[in-house]
Amino acid sequence: MADALRIGIAGLGTVGAALVRILQQRSNELAVSCGRPLVVTAVSARDRTRDRGADLSGITWYDDPLELAASADIDVFVELVGGANGAAHDSVRAALARGVHVVTANKALLAYHGVDLARIAEANSVILNYEAAVAGGIPVIKAMRESLTGNSFSRIYGIMNGTCNYILTRMEKEGLSFADCLAEAQRLGYAEADPAFDIDGNDTAHKLAILTTLAFGSEIAADEIYLEGISNISIDDIHAAADLGYRIKLLGVAQRTETGIEQRVHPTMVPLDSVIAQVDGVTNAVALESDILGELLMVGPGAGGNATASAVLGDITDIAKSRPGAQQVPVLGRPAHLLEPYRQAAMRSHEGGYFIRLRVADRIGVFASIAGRMAENGISLESIVQHAKRQPEAGAPQTIILVTHATMEGAVRQAVSAIREEGYLVGEPQVIRIERPKNG
Amino acid sequence: MADALRIGIAGLGTVGAALVRILQQRSNELAVSCGRPLVVTAVSARDRTRDRGADLSGITWYDDPLELAASADIDVFVELVGGANGAAHDSVRAALARGVHVVTANKALLAYHGVDLARIAEANSVILNYEAAVAGGIPVIKAMRESLTGNSFSRIYGIMNGTCNYILTRMEKEGLSFADCLAEAQRLGYAEADPAFDIDGNDTAHKLAILTTLAFGSEIAADEIYLEGISNISIDDIHAAADLGYRIKLLGVAQRTETGIEQRVHPTMVPLDSVIAQVDGVTNAVALESDILGELLMVGPGAGGNATASAVLGDITDIAKSRPGAQQVPVLGRPAHLLEPYRQAAMRSHEGGYFIRLRVADRIGVFASIAGRMAENGISLESIVQHAKRQPEAGAPQTIILVTHATMEGAVRQAVSAIREEGYLVGEPQVIRIERPKNG
Repeated sequence: MADALRIGIAGLGTVGAALVRILQQRSNELAVSCGRPLVVTAVSARDRTRDRGADLSGITWYDDPLELAASADIDVFVELVGGANGAAHDSVRAALARGVHVVTANKALLAYHGVDLARIAEANSVILNYEAAVAGGIPVIKAMRESLTGNSFSRIYGIMNGTCNYILTRMEKEGLSFADCLAEAQRLGYAEADPAFDIDGNDTAHKLAILTTLAFGSEIAADEIYLEGISNISIDDIHAAADLGYRIKLLGVAQRTETGIEQRVHPTMVPLDSVIAQVDGVTNAVALESDILGELLMVGPGAGGNATASAVLGDITDIAKSRPGAQQVPVLGRPAHLLEPYRQAAMRSHEGGYFIRLRVADRIGVFASIAGRMAENGISLESIVQHAKRQPEAGAPQTIILVTHATMEGAVRQAVSAIREEGYLVGEPQVIRIERPKNG
Repeated sequence: MADALRIGIAGLGTVGAALVRILQQRSNELAVSCGRPLVVTAVSARDRTRDRGADLSGITWYDDPLELAASADIDVFVELVGGANGAAHDSVRAALARGVHVVTANKALLAYHGVDLARIAEANSVILNYEAAVAGGIPVIKAMRESLTGNSFSRIYGIMNGTCNYILTRMEKEGLSFADCLAEAQRLGYAEADPAFDIDGNDTAHKLAILTTLAFGSEIAADEIYLEGISNISIDDIHAAADLGYRIKLLGVAQRTETGIEQRVHPTMVPLDSVIAQVDGVTNAVALESDILGELLMVGPGAGGNATASAVLGDITDIAKSRPGAQQVPVLGRPAHLLEPYRQAAMRSHEGGYFIRLRVADRIGVFASIAGRMAENGISLESIVQHAKRQPEAGAPQTIILVTHATMEGAVRQAVSAIREEGYLVGEPQVIRIERPKNG
């Protein structure tokens, strides 16, 4: 049997501790699958006293990830520190630069420094694996980098934030408000005390930016993503969606268009009978549409210590099976120096269906006016209805719901703005994009 | 750039022709991803005159796959001939034995000779890849062999036959009979002129046998699978399932139990709101349940020239990136000589929920008798109802539907047999197993 693969793990939080336990408990099976033992030789973490459910005796401890990355005792540096910059970035960079393979679960690091790190990895002929950075345990990076080689992607989209999906699922199933579901998610540990990063869509955006590069071969552009969170989704929207045969999900979508690449994260209506509409709670899902394969959808746990550790472990075992001299899979699907500049499509030219919910004063001619503003902007309507349920009293504001056929975002914005000027709107109009899976 | 990978393709049917076209049309992108050109140097096929939409000039032609496998001009032998034995088996064996990598899409070959071929591949340090053999374009083999290394599987199940899923979907959506849908599937080319191999579950069984070995590390046992096809599923079963909140799918299921491994292919009721219930038409789906990751579900095209070629291409690119001396991924997840003997669990000890539909004479005491036979066999009922819809006239046979809580197959068989002896049954009783995804 070949020499052991010596693993250094920076960060012994939930994922790191789970990883050490699994590496120890499954050492025999792993050695058989990989043809060599996998051994944790060094770790870095601040707290040396906490019980992590694993035997850490005989493992070299470092306080600083940078010291661990510089250690001569490791073949792979596993970064579980987190954060786009600081210790995570410095230590990963240092490890790659000295020719040590790296595995990371850090989406922010990849989203902001991925191209630079890929260049360093490729210049030093080492592997940089990051399966756990996107959609946790779902092997979407491997599918895109290895299984779908040769395919040309047209669109990728997914539910990549468990917190948002949990909240939307609870709202629908139990008729609760956004605020109540958020509080519940926080109580259960599914949402952070400061939930903005999740519910505003930033977390999804980081993951989407990585997938966009793998799909379209352009440089990572994590800050050029159209962002809309879920905090203004009301239970009325969810009910109206259900009445129309849709369910609301926070999707990240990347799409090749004639004018560039669209990257967008927003609440989205998907058909109720589509597979992705059934993805409930904290579960994630990623759909890949490509020209040779067609559509591939993967559904699985997007977070959690064990699921994330499983993805990290898969990355480590790939390194264990590799040998110096083998052609490494390009970190970002194609070699970093061949990535194209990112060319962003204007959000105004996004084409799709729209759901528009308006509260209007109970006045003669409103219906006609709304229909008129739509027509003037060339928007073809699939339906325009006064909300059938929850009829208000006479004289009270009424709800009108429009669903458009495929149209341009710019036209919708212009029509809504024209309607706003008419003076009969009560409160803010709600606009939610509709996304349809390729197969129905 | 490294030397070209020289590819020999045996079989230029739909998949082979698609593969040659893709390799030619995408040659630049593939060379960039793989770090070396991929070149088709030789093919074998009977008909040299047919137009395959690809430039075959300059490619060496062989009439016999065995000659191709023996050719000195190839680094990879791609077997697209089909069939468990004969030319496919002989040529794959010969290629592996002389140290040539093999990619195959042949499920029957793997199901019946997989362990033997894995031994030869491993003894000669060459790669045997077969992603396309199970669920077409869905990268389930790679997920199990590479992404989930270290995981212990508890259950795998899936929709792995597009013909059956197409027929069941049409029956439900359009209220058509099995025979009508089968005829339609044949007209559209989704079913063979002799459809028995698909609709009796044999095709699913071949694929399941391969996944079972990857999941549980036992030798492939393609002939030790409990088989029930879909030909006796009626539109009444489908309606009754829907009334109870289920949909009927032909599933292949492999499961580790205390007494051994269960391998079974049968019509199965899955909850209507589960993700897999939404997988319609010819689409396939595979679910993997394991202890570290949790549940991973993959949905995608299970057949078709392009989708299959995409999977074959992924296998080829993995070989292109490998180098002699690298530890190969064990063909069947663990080295062939370490596979354990297959230990089959008795189907009588299968535990699960059951749907039982009985047509009975309209006679006093029948309800009580049925309930009694169930109780005597220790079967706890979730529901027992006279079918609410389609009430027969007084005196005509009535339909009674039972749904059991988790119980043993043996008990159900005994209870049904006891009911049969009572003499009030009209026609054959229908028994359909219920399967629940882990998460709901």
